[in-house]
Amino acid sequence: ADALTIGSYTLTSRLMVGSSGYPNPQVMLDAIDASGADMVTVAIRRVNVENPAPESHLDLLRKGGHTILPNTAGCYTAREAVLVANLAREALDTDLIKLEVIGDDEMLMPDVEQLLKAAKTLVDDGFTVLAYANDDPITCRKLADLGCAAVMPLGAPIGSGMGIVNPYNLRIIREELPDTPLIVDAGIGTASDAAQAMELGYDGILLNTAIAEAKHPVDMARAIRHGLEGGRLAYRAGRIPRRRYAKASSPQQGRVGS
Amino acid sequence: ADALTIGSYTLTSRLMVGSSGYPNPQVMLDAIDASGADMVTVAIRRVNVENPAPESHLDLLRKGGHTILPNTAGCYTAREAVLVANLAREALDTDLIKLEVIGDDEMLMPDVEQLLKAAKTLVDDGFTVLAYANDDPITCRKLADLGCAAVMPLGAPIGSGMGIVNPYNLRIIREELPDTPLIVDAGIGTASDAAQAMELGYDGILLNTAIAEAKHPVDMARAIRHGLEGGRLAYRAGRIPRRRYAKASSPQQGRVGS
Amino acid sequence: ADALTIGSYTLTSRLMVGSSGYPNPQVMLDAIDASGADMVTVAIRRVNVENPAPESHLDLLRKGGHTILPNTAGCYTAREAVLVANLAREALDTDLIKLEVIGDDEMLMPDVEQLLKAAKTLVDDGFTVLAYANDDPITCRKLADLGCAAVMPLGAPIGSGMGIVNPYNLRIIREELPDTPLIVDAGIGTASDAAQAMELGYDGILLNTAIAEAKHPVDMARAIRHGLEGGRLAYRAGRIPRRRYAKASSPQQGRVGS
Amino acid sequence: ADALTIGSYTLTSRLMVGSSGYPNPQVMLDAIDASGADMVTVAIRRVNVENPAPESHLDLLRKGGHTILPNTAGCYTAREAVLVANLAREALDTDLIKLEVIGDDEMLMPDVEQLLKAAKTLVDDGFTVLAYANDDPITCRKLADLGCAAVMPLGAPIGSGMGIVNPYNLRIIREELPDTPLIVDAGIGTASDAAQAMELGYDGILLNTAIAEAKHPVDMARAIRHGLEGGRLAYRAGRIPRRRYAKASSPQQGRVGS
Repeated sequence: ADALTIGSYTLTSRLMVGSSGYPNPQVMLDAIDASGADMVTVAIRRVNVENPAPESHLDLLRKGGHTILPNTAGCYTAREAVLVANLAREALDTDLIKLEVIGDDEMLMPDVEQLLKAAKTLVDDGFTVLAYANDDPITCRKLADLGCAAVMPLGAPIGSGMGIVNPYNLRIIREELPDTPLIVDAGIGTASDAAQAMELGYDGILLNTAIAEAKHPVDMARAIRHGLEGGRLAYRAGRIPRRRYAKASSPQQGRVGS
Repeated sequence: ADALTIGSYTLTSRLMVGSSGYPNPQVMLDAIDASGADMVTVAIRRVNVENPAPESHLDLLRKGGHTILPNTAGCYTAREAVLVANLAREALDTDLIKLEVIGDDEMLMPDVEQLLKAAKTLVDDGFTVLAYANDDPITCRKLADLGCAAVMPLGAPIGSGMGIVNPYNLRIIREELPDTPLIVDAGIGTASDAAQAMELGYDGILLNTAIAEAKHPVDMARAIRHGLEGGRLAYRAGRIPRRRYAKASSPQQGRVGS
Repeated sequence: ADALTIGSYTLTSRLMVGSSGYPNPQVMLDAIDASGADMVTVAIRRVNVENPAPESHLDLLRKGGHTILPNTAGCYTAREAVLVANLAREALDTDLIKLEVIGDDEMLMPDVEQLLKAAKTLVDDGFTVLAYANDDPITCRKLADLGCAAVMPLGAPIGSGMGIVNPYNLRIIREELPDTPLIVDAGIGTASDAAQAMELGYDGILLNTAIAEAKHPVDMARAIRHGLEGGRLAYRAGRIPRRRYAKASSPQQGRVGS
Repeated sequence: ADALTIGSYTLTSRLMVGSSGYPNPQVMLDAIDASGADMVTVAIRRVNVENPAPESHLDLLRKGGHTILPNTAGCYTAREAVLVANLAREALDTDLIKLEVIGDDEMLMPDVEQLLKAAKTLVDDGFTVLAYANDDPITCRKLADLGCAAVMPLGAPIGSGMGIVNPYNLRIIREELPDTPLIVDAGIGTASDAAQAMELGYDGILLNTAIAEAKHPVDMARAIRHGLEGGRLAYRAGRIPRRRYAKASSPQQGRVGS
């Protein structure tokens, strides 16, 4: 009823998750199951794509019926990212790619120039590109104009758990790109962050660390799922305006005892 | 499993809702049903407690199996509030009372002096008192010390939809009163606010306007329910710490193509 | 030109400072001098009011031409505070009193009930009462109605340096009490906090720790003085409205090279 | 004593201002004088650089002893910006250029790709480049690496008066570029914003609309100047840490009357 379409893919869940950093594979599977996500992102340079071990994450996730979204984490140049994307396409037989091209190894923020270059190449090569971006409205618009299937501005640096540090910019990006699938990628730390992202009108969220490194990953996966669902419903339900002054929710007339 | 106990009452839902301001009684019932709330607060001065009309809100809510939490909305003095509470006890055969004593008719903020006076009288008279308070840690501690069954600091003025304007104070109140049931009452505007309240470790939330006056009240009731559930689960799941700097969620070793 | 009147006192500076916590008396005097403050608050229980040592803070401050504002820091009850105020009046021959009645020894937040009680007594006894309050609009209005010469809501707990944690409430208090001298007391940590307080329309600020415990107290005193002055001037100069979208500050016509 | 060096230029003031949008030239001159700025930026496409009228802004500003900082406002491409910069150099006999390359005509946010391209060309051509940037740490680092004399991330969109919407990123930029002159350019609305920018460790601020369109521009110029000075002093004075809990500023021992 409220499905999300990205390129030719229709997702039943608006939550996408990662697969790294979990205490062990079973917790990963249980948490992803609890999250309800159908699309799971996997860093391609960390799996042996040519000869995966029988119980690799990829196998486990595919057996679980998940759609694999390969990503180019760890790539610093367009060239590297395009190479990894092609490796992924060949090995996994998918045109999906979550494009990350980062500019430093500490904050892992996108390198906008390299990102745009890689996005252009991959779109031209027929990939369905989901582009991890910073929260710059101009860059996000360019990614959309290039033909990316989804644009994914960060809420905060990867793994920081800071939530959405600049809701002002995220709102502008939503307004500028009303028809592009927009996903908040990175920074989400807890359920209220997920809700807030959806209340800003975003189409989904992608996260990994908040679940994988929570004290209880499976419970946190459920928490984030509820938060996202609450935020999405609230966005569609039409919230009350913020009013600086109060307004009595109970009628004031007919007071007793006055 | 995660029930909330207030005095001798055990609630299956941590969400409490009001009953006023809805477009019509059917929407009210549907929204309250969607919210999952078992406790519903009703302003006593607005119902004819001695001779209620057959289809009054009270009847409807009782038929729906809800626990009625009468409130003293519109009372400006301890004397008034105590009078209304006694009226409610007699008419509704309940010791529950949501105590509101307000200091102005614009912001509807509590009058702390009158509130504390009324709380003392009502606790002494055997009421189960849920006290609507401001976000002052000292006042909240006094209400707990007086024997209130729950203390309910505001997130923001009633009906403002501003959310939690002072999370700093709400956090202090939680730390100072680890064993008192604490409910965020007033100010909640949307699902992320509900999640945030629970992530602060609060035991529940009470709201009315955010649902009743949303464009689609039933959907917003479901939204808030999810938000609360997400926040509660996240609180118990143990979120990751906020880190100023990012931390790669994917291992950096073994990069391809470098 | 822009003097502040509190009761029968006219202050040339809108900055009031404290006298405790400095590395040594000379730094205190230098910092207070740099701050430009004419009114300096002194905790009465810490000086031997009956027989002060020759070089006590009181003597030093008086020699420096400062108006002493005795305060009742450390008082937990109205009775205690009234006693200290009377001691101060007798010993210092002043009707000025900064009234503090706190409710705990950790956060040092006001006990509203005891505060209001003490304020009433002291106003009735002819004191010029400057009342340290929390940021509750109802309590602040009551203090003004009782006849306090100034109402001084906190920005944040004493010594916390958190700045103004709830500008929403401070704004409401200003709107509700347009004619009462309002001072932000406690919480100010740095120059921008001082500016913000004044931009909210407050009449002055009072602080101690931010200067006394800065690495370089004299420089910080100057910093705060500039911040306050900047905020005051900005408040009177009429700032531009906040606009969500940009507006070119340079004309767009006549572009070269297009 | 606390001069700011940008390239071969030494500025006595850390405040730079614009020259457009004033009610009339006299108010402009008076406000700039009150601001204390020595460097004033002028949009080049709006002056007739080849044959300026006798009383043009440029003449007025030069007579006033100000250093003219020509800017490329209104340029959408590197090519345009480079052309305007060269026009300015020839006409004004200066190597200074404030480089703006914007990506849209509504928010006036920088186009990062074009900006970097133009910056490289202009640095190579011997210009002293002050680059207006967004708050992306990677882009700012690239601009510094290219040899820009100053990097000027925005606080918020030009003319918005929103202040600093993302202090988190501005702080990261400062930490990443400890030795590059950093100026907050755009978004400043009032004195506290100016103070906050300096407290983040920035070397200066540049603004136009906040002064030019204030109700009283000359007073606002003085306000901003004080705010900046306060923030700078506070940054160097070493503020107290923020503590969640209060700490008594007056000794608690020796209480009277207990």
